Amino acid sequence: MSTLDPAILGMLKDPDLLIPTIVQDNTSLQILMLAYSNTESLALTVESGNATYWSRSRNQLWVKGATSGHVQSVRSISLDCDGDAILFRVDQTGVACHTGETTCFHKPLGLELL
Amino acid sequence: MSTLDPAILGMLKDPDLLIPTIVQDNTSLQILMLAYSNTESLALTVESGNATYWSRSRNQLWVKGATSGHVQSVRSISLDCDGDAILFRVDQTGVACHTGETTCFHKPLGLELL
Repeated sequence: MSTLDPAILGMLKDPDLLIPTIVQDNTSLQILMLAYSNTESLALTVESGNATYWSRSRNQLWVKGATSGHVQSVRSISLDCDGDAILFRVDQTGVACHTGETTCFHKPLGLELL
Repeated sequence: MSTLDPAILGMLKDPDLLIPTIVQDNTSLQILMLAYSNTESLALTVESGNATYWSRSRNQLWVKGATSGHVQSVRSISLDCDGDAILFRVDQTGVACHTGETTCFHKPLGLELL
């Protein structure tokens, strides 16, 4: 089992919780998806450079693209000010969404905002 | 109490849960923060055009900028493919982070990624 660098561990608000992880394309700056990290998946991401998450539906580690080939090479990782959200900037191979769309956020609500 | 348009309500995976909401600057495409929506805060956001969240720490509705003046005018709202994450694109007045930084994600981990 991979373990997280104590320096990073100390920055997390609650290392026992799943941490929402925003995934942004490093070139287009488009938001690709929101996934969840835990300390093990984050350690694996740091070690391998390949975005790895915790799958809530399968309740197991999820190396993004392991099946589809749509891997994400992580270019930078940032924590937010209170250590309970993460931002990955990635180079995406293929598409991020399982539907075949570039991004999981392909459903804009056609709202008339003020 | 504001209620959410049933058409939007029907797109949410679980309307009883808090929904992580990514907040992105509409011009720079920088990620500003991650907050949480519920159906009431989302209804208020749609009605007013001003980003409104559910504060987990205060356990109440949170009109972003109500105290600081650092309001967010919402330009678009998107749901992700499975309806359990939201993306707001906003015009930010002032700064997003309570620390005075432009974005809450101002702590890049200085990693040597592969």
